[in-house]
Amino acid sequence: MALIVQKYGGSSLESAERIRRVAERIVATKKQGNDVVVVCSAMGDTTDEFLDLAAQVNPVPPAREMDMLLTAGERISNALVAMAIESFGAKAQSFTGSQAGVLTTERHGNARIVDVTPDRVREALDEGWICLVAGFQGVNKDTRDVTTLGRGGSDTTAVALAAALGADVCEIYSDVDGVYTADPRIVKNARKLDQLCFEEMLELAAVGSKILVLRSVEYARAFGVPIRVRSSYSNDPGTLVTGSMEDIPVEEAVLTGVATDLSEAKVTVLGIPDSPGEAARVFRVLADAEINIDMVLQNISSLEDNRTDITFTCPRADGPRAMELLKKLQSEGACENVLYDDQIGKVSLVGAGMKSHPGVTAVFCEALRDSGVNLELISTSEIRISVLIRETDVETAARALHDAFELGGDTEATVYAGTGR
Amino acid sequence: MALIVQKYGGSSLESAERIRRVAERIVATKKQGNDVVVVCSAMGDTTDEFLDLAAQVNPVPPAREMDMLLTAGERISNALVAMAIESFGAKAQSFTGSQAGVLTTERHGNARIVDVTPDRVREALDEGWICLVAGFQGVNKDTRDVTTLGRGGSDTTAVALAAALGADVCEIYSDVDGVYTADPRIVKNARKLDQLCFEEMLELAAVGSKILVLRSVEYARAFGVPIRVRSSYSNDPGTLVTGSMEDIPVEEAVLTGVATDLSEAKVTVLGIPDSPGEAARVFRVLADAEINIDMVLQNISSLEDNRTDITFTCPRADGPRAMELLKKLQSEGACENVLYDDQIGKVSLVGAGMKSHPGVTAVFCEALRDSGVNLELISTSEIRISVLIRETDVETAARALHDAFELGGDTEATVYAGTGR
Repeated sequence: MALIVQKYGGSSLESAERIRRVAERIVATKKQGNDVVVVCSAMGDTTDEFLDLAAQVNPVPPAREMDMLLTAGERISNALVAMAIESFGAKAQSFTGSQAGVLTTERHGNARIVDVTPDRVREALDEGWICLVAGFQGVNKDTRDVTTLGRGGSDTTAVALAAALGADVCEIYSDVDGVYTADPRIVKNARKLDQLCFEEMLELAAVGSKILVLRSVEYARAFGVPIRVRSSYSNDPGTLVTGSMEDIPVEEAVLTGVATDLSEAKVTVLGIPDSPGEAARVFRVLADAEINIDMVLQNISSLEDNRTDITFTCPRADGPRAMELLKKLQSEGACENVLYDDQIGKVSLVGAGMKSHPGVTAVFCEALRDSGVNLELISTSEIRISVLIRETDVETAARALHDAFELGGDTEATVYAGTGR
Repeated sequence: MALIVQKYGGSSLESAERIRRVAERIVATKKQGNDVVVVCSAMGDTTDEFLDLAAQVNPVPPAREMDMLLTAGERISNALVAMAIESFGAKAQSFTGSQAGVLTTERHGNARIVDVTPDRVREALDEGWICLVAGFQGVNKDTRDVTTLGRGGSDTTAVALAAALGADVCEIYSDVDGVYTADPRIVKNARKLDQLCFEEMLELAAVGSKILVLRSVEYARAFGVPIRVRSSYSNDPGTLVTGSMEDIPVEEAVLTGVATDLSEAKVTVLGIPDSPGEAARVFRVLADAEINIDMVLQNISSLEDNRTDITFTCPRADGPRAMELLKKLQSEGACENVLYDDQIGKVSLVGAGMKSHPGVTAVFCEALRDSGVNLELISTSEIRISVLIRETDVETAARALHDAFELGGDTEATVYAGTGR
């Protein structure tokens, strides 16, 4: 008998009919002899409706109350799934994040889990109940105020619970049936992966794959919780994310896939005095505003005027704020000009096999050259190469790389409508 | 500086605009120098929407999960009101029933408050916060499961909190601006009362007045919490419910008002063997099914066959269930026949003045006779007379009694659309 944690995304729960379908699957898992813990996101558009209501009563709603409001969504969906489970003849109890012992930091809207003490869940499991835990939420360990975990928080709840309960696997259900070698909407012969290691999944999540949020993969890696990415609408076994890159024999290490990302913008800061601390000043301003910097390039300073240029990327959503802060720096003489460009995209190749195949970067650049794609920035890790290119070149580049590294399958991939989150 | 508990009903909170209006009133109360605790019901139709969803996933939803689902409604409205309050420049924190220390029995769907330990609320008040507490909900003191208090539970939450905090007054806001001498939709010159005592309000609530639920008045009386019934849409001081009947000087005791009730049905059990325990058997069956009996009449047994008839009233909603149980008794020979009649209504006159005015019953019966209304059952308490009549006679009877006892004012009463709950 295994202990299985299952997480269902909002689109899998958007109607009473879908809730019943999810409940059927949960009961089937239980009837196969497993202990089952389920984490549900809020139904379909609930969260957006709450955000809309909040904006109507207060354009800048206080974060503590926003968390109190949003967490009602998961409470609703979990209670409904518990009811549906009972209608299929199994017994179920739903728990809030607080009742399930999900303890977090105090940061409302983006709290981090600091501990999980699921005593009530463990007890209910021992008594034969199917346990539902409201995802995305926890309770501040000091003030006992309700908190939320930020985007994709239900994935994190599921993985954290799986770790605390010593579950055998954490199954993440959405409307996508696994991790693909590329976005099937862009690359027709993208292939579903049977398995990949935590580091590969981390890199993919970091460079634009939406299938799992970065934080949940970090948590799974830290506690060694195997994740299985599956579809709510099929019996396909999906993709297993498990094990460390270190444990993959060199001859088995392969290239995992190509990821694309259109969510970033490029900022260029021109004419920064090339003396110690001047570049740091630019990054300090952005860091204080909690703007995440991704790729960075500092140009060689020109000899005539002893000034340098810095180019970096950041989320487009933070672009206007970043520009405002940098224009202020410019007015203080910290640089000569600031340029903004959001017509860019990022294409990345990920895979543990990169370590053992020295020619990867060369093939990568040749493939882009042959398809007429110009590189603006390049950054690499041990198992990843990312390049910044024109937004309009992203699909061409993804297909070229996917072909060059022979990642495709023989058949056309199934394309799904949403992202499952 | 006073401590004021305010309770707002669902119709006062049915849109963002109404929530902002309620928030404005709360902030005004705070700015007058008072400490303010607010209890909100769920917004408008939220509860009905939840019930509908629940029925779709499970026709017989488990009570524990139903409570988990329904309590999300008050969480939503309280968080939104807190946000709106902040937009008016005051500071507010919302608390769930559990966080506010509302401890209840374990009976899901209809729990009773056993204790209120509002330490967090007290602490927040001392720090200058306006405190919002989710109404209608509590937490089982033994299992820590979420419970609900049944119909009108938010009134009870408000009164119980007021008692625990030693509040000066508990204001109950709805779309009605006070307690009237009769339903203004039926009796045009019904008059708003400035004040009445707990016993009078208890009797009115028991015989059909919807303005306050019985349980909240019982609680207020037990703990001596003055209740003020007010409208969310006006500055009218409303009606104050306070003090005991015993404390009213005889010469000031008056008749309070006329109440009507169309929610009951009449059941007649014919041919019960007239020996000890036979009538008890009928009532035991109904009590075990938790069906509340109101008026009861046992006929004199006929001499020929030594059998008796019993007539009683019960909520129409329980009628089919009651009939099923009694038909079963009939098949066991415990009676000869069972008749059901839901075309009946109840009209009651309430007032502490009844004690000191011996002619009240006579005037009551004469007024009905003169308007051609036939009495089917009559029951009385120290300060109430109720009669069961044809449903179609209820409005005529209410007007006749209101006139006969000169309860009306000089002007036509304002008529409101809803019930405010």
